[in-house]
Amino acid sequence: MKPKMDEITMSKENSLHMSSAEFRNTGYAVIDWIADYYEKVDSYPVLSQVKPGDIRSSLPDAPPQNGESMNKIINDVNQLIMPGITHWQSPNFYGYFPCNASGPAILADLLSSGLGINGMLWTTSPACTELETHVLDWLADMLDLPKHFKSTGSGGGVIQDTASSSSLCALIASRERATKGRSNKYGCKNKLTAYASNQSHSSIEKAVIIAGLGKNNMRLIDVDESFAMRSENLKVQIEQDIKDGFTPAYVCATVGTTSSTAFDPLKEIGEICRQYNLWLHVDAAMAGTAALCPEYRYVQEGLEFADSYTFNPHKWMLTNFDCSCLYVADRSELINSLSISPEYLKNQATQSGAVFDYRDWQIPLGRRFRSLKLWSVIRYYGVEGLRKYIRKHVELAQEFASWVEDDDRFQLMAPVPLNLVCFRYSGSNEFNKMILDNLNQSGDLFLTHTKLNEYYTLRICIGQTRTTIEHVDHAWKMIKKTAEKLETRSKN
Amino acid sequence: MKPKMDEITMSKENSLHMSSAEFRNTGYAVIDWIADYYEKVDSYPVLSQVKPGDIRSSLPDAPPQNGESMNKIINDVNQLIMPGITHWQSPNFYGYFPCNASGPAILADLLSSGLGINGMLWTTSPACTELETHVLDWLADMLDLPKHFKSTGSGGGVIQDTASSSSLCALIASRERATKGRSNKYGCKNKLTAYASNQSHSSIEKAVIIAGLGKNNMRLIDVDESFAMRSENLKVQIEQDIKDGFTPAYVCATVGTTSSTAFDPLKEIGEICRQYNLWLHVDAAMAGTAALCPEYRYVQEGLEFADSYTFNPHKWMLTNFDCSCLYVADRSELINSLSISPEYLKNQATQSGAVFDYRDWQIPLGRRFRSLKLWSVIRYYGVEGLRKYIRKHVELAQEFASWVEDDDRFQLMAPVPLNLVCFRYSGSNEFNKMILDNLNQSGDLFLTHTKLNEYYTLRICIGQTRTTIEHVDHAWKMIKKTAEKLETRSKN
Repeated sequence: MKPKMDEITMSKENSLHMSSAEFRNTGYAVIDWIADYYEKVDSYPVLSQVKPGDIRSSLPDAPPQNGESMNKIINDVNQLIMPGITHWQSPNFYGYFPCNASGPAILADLLSSGLGINGMLWTTSPACTELETHVLDWLADMLDLPKHFKSTGSGGGVIQDTASSSSLCALIASRERATKGRSNKYGCKNKLTAYASNQSHSSIEKAVIIAGLGKNNMRLIDVDESFAMRSENLKVQIEQDIKDGFTPAYVCATVGTTSSTAFDPLKEIGEICRQYNLWLHVDAAMAGTAALCPEYRYVQEGLEFADSYTFNPHKWMLTNFDCSCLYVADRSELINSLSISPEYLKNQATQSGAVFDYRDWQIPLGRRFRSLKLWSVIRYYGVEGLRKYIRKHVELAQEFASWVEDDDRFQLMAPVPLNLVCFRYSGSNEFNKMILDNLNQSGDLFLTHTKLNEYYTLRICIGQTRTTIEHVDHAWKMIKKTAEKLETRSKN
Repeated sequence: MKPKMDEITMSKENSLHMSSAEFRNTGYAVIDWIADYYEKVDSYPVLSQVKPGDIRSSLPDAPPQNGESMNKIINDVNQLIMPGITHWQSPNFYGYFPCNASGPAILADLLSSGLGINGMLWTTSPACTELETHVLDWLADMLDLPKHFKSTGSGGGVIQDTASSSSLCALIASRERATKGRSNKYGCKNKLTAYASNQSHSSIEKAVIIAGLGKNNMRLIDVDESFAMRSENLKVQIEQDIKDGFTPAYVCATVGTTSSTAFDPLKEIGEICRQYNLWLHVDAAMAGTAALCPEYRYVQEGLEFADSYTFNPHKWMLTNFDCSCLYVADRSELINSLSISPEYLKNQATQSGAVFDYRDWQIPLGRRFRSLKLWSVIRYYGVEGLRKYIRKHVELAQEFASWVEDDDRFQLMAPVPLNLVCFRYSGSNEFNKMILDNLNQSGDLFLTHTKLNEYYTLRICIGQTRTTIEHVDHAWKMIKKTAEKLETRSKN
């Protein structure tokens, strides 16, 4: 028998802090809250319907002087916060790339919050470091990554918050390589150049800015008709830059672009990087997960040329945000770029050299115990379970794409290799934008858009944990109905 | 009646995913696990006693092909992971700065995991953005920060993962100011200089490296006998640098250094920054929380000169890691430095200009709903509850310091303004290191060290949620006993 919220005595006893009994009772209630939420998540409007300022205006101007009960706080979540939620966990959420969640991830992350450790150094919780190294080695095998990415070789994996941070860390290491260890000491000379396709994620350009290379030293390389980088253009640009006195440092190739899941040709790009001694970083933030299935591993062909690789289990691998995996082929290059050792962090284990201190593999010092949720997901689903689930999403997307193809009023705008369908209605960009806005305002489903060859394009990414054929079928019906309604309206 | 772990049916039914019933039952069990953990946390050795490699060698080489039960995973947490935990939540944890946790934070973070949203843009969950802005305005009032740090003025607050990231964001904004908007575009010329005391946190130097200024362009300014920056030396250094053709850009002043909670003189430093148009960033990562109490607000005197300010509720304000607050006086300077706007993230709310998109206030794109736990802590404790708790820790540290002072064999090595006591035994550095190692190996308590004026110094930071006078008294007895034991042993 679970306790009910209103049966729980919320009195705080003598201590300021929550008693064990109150923690248990309120904890059960929060667990039930989440279970209830998932049972009815598809009944909410997917995109929050509030206007700017609505949420703030419902909150009191000043914090309470005296403590309030958790009951009251949870009631306010229901009343004041929930209207301002865009439901990423809805099976009708098709926007951006997903951030899907699962029971084993939520509960293992709860354990991590309860333990409340900071894994900045091996010694500050050896299990945090060693489980992370171990699970990332598991994942390297599961994805069939090159062996040098494993900690048992020259490399290793680390969990970052996002692919933005992963790509930034790789860029900093590349900066050091390109300047033969001088940029950390003397600063980033503004003649270093970085390369990515014009379809690469905005976080690459942001990393180039943050690391002090300068936006103007970021070269966006043209793409072919599949939106993949033209490697011959990369080569021409690198040679031109060398001629112009620049030092090419970093190439980011994308496995599954955000706009359309295009795949840059890793092998060709990798050979160019070898030739000119550039760091090759591979961003497979969403699509990387597909490599769990042998039949999709072609997406990462040529990965053996990469110096670093990132993909996000928090996107398509059921591991709650945040969890981005960064692998490096030579960990010493990363560590040498990011290590600082003040007296107050010195300890025997670090000085013995026998351990990893993950603070040296990332931007921040402190870190959560995030491998617990990743480990939990891998074990709960098993390799076969994860494959089954990925295949289901790809199958649903292929089904959706076939419906688009069969309808003369719509067209596919890019290849559909995995779980993202880019399509548009035959009409103006403005008309397609109207379709999108109408759909999102309906609350029935949530899509986002991109531009491909200057065409305003709708994107439907199928990656939510509980999305089924019924949801996808409903989405397609709504899309057609909305287009028809707007078409009729525009004719009258 | 709560369900017991062994009563729970762990079968996965037909779906791959965890059923609602299983989530509830396993969830209750995890809640109980945490409550049980806190009931017995002081019975564990505080510092994990495992050797490098112990945890990994207990884990299977390969992930399971087929899914396993949560029961099995949780059993493995108990058997394999717990020996590798250093117990940051133990009342006997006195190392580094604390990362203290509380029931309302753990449970609100669980809600956040359950909602599973990504708050990168206002539109991707308006409540995530607006609650954050609102609660950070509350906090600005609670700490009596200058009004321009509030969102209702020119500034505003944002939650980052750590103070490392907060300080880096501020540095990037300062780079833009110093180069009149040119460094983002053309790269970071290596003539920009940054300043902090030689007692400042290592993350400042790391930020200087990451942002491409170069370690050699970081000036570490001398400190006085209280370990506070000598502002006159700062001025001399800035003038020398200008003379030498450098462009001084950024000063980080520390409110409560990690070594000894020293306070840099903000007013004097601020006046110098104004005179030379430098960005003043104030790092109050741990000590900032003290300003909840009017009697400790003197620590931030002069803060009105700061361009940015950071403190971490995840250190001393009962809000589980990670939660670092960054305030800026002029939000446009931060946003202009970090904003990138690709097509696929464009939306009506952003383009209206009526909302904040917090991706433009930070390094990563994605972000968790972290304000939920901060809001929950503030409401559960109330302003008065938080003050009471801070005062208790300061009182305990003062008591401990008085014991040190009263014992001729020990001496205080730095002023004790708040909750950190720096002290040493009258003997060699090696002897003090032996005391520390022996204490930590005993598992009874955990301390860390620093060096002050070349003396190896023990640090005891009292900031754990449930540390009482009994724990502190026990710590002092153990320290004396260990010193005596080692003294006797060294004489024999």
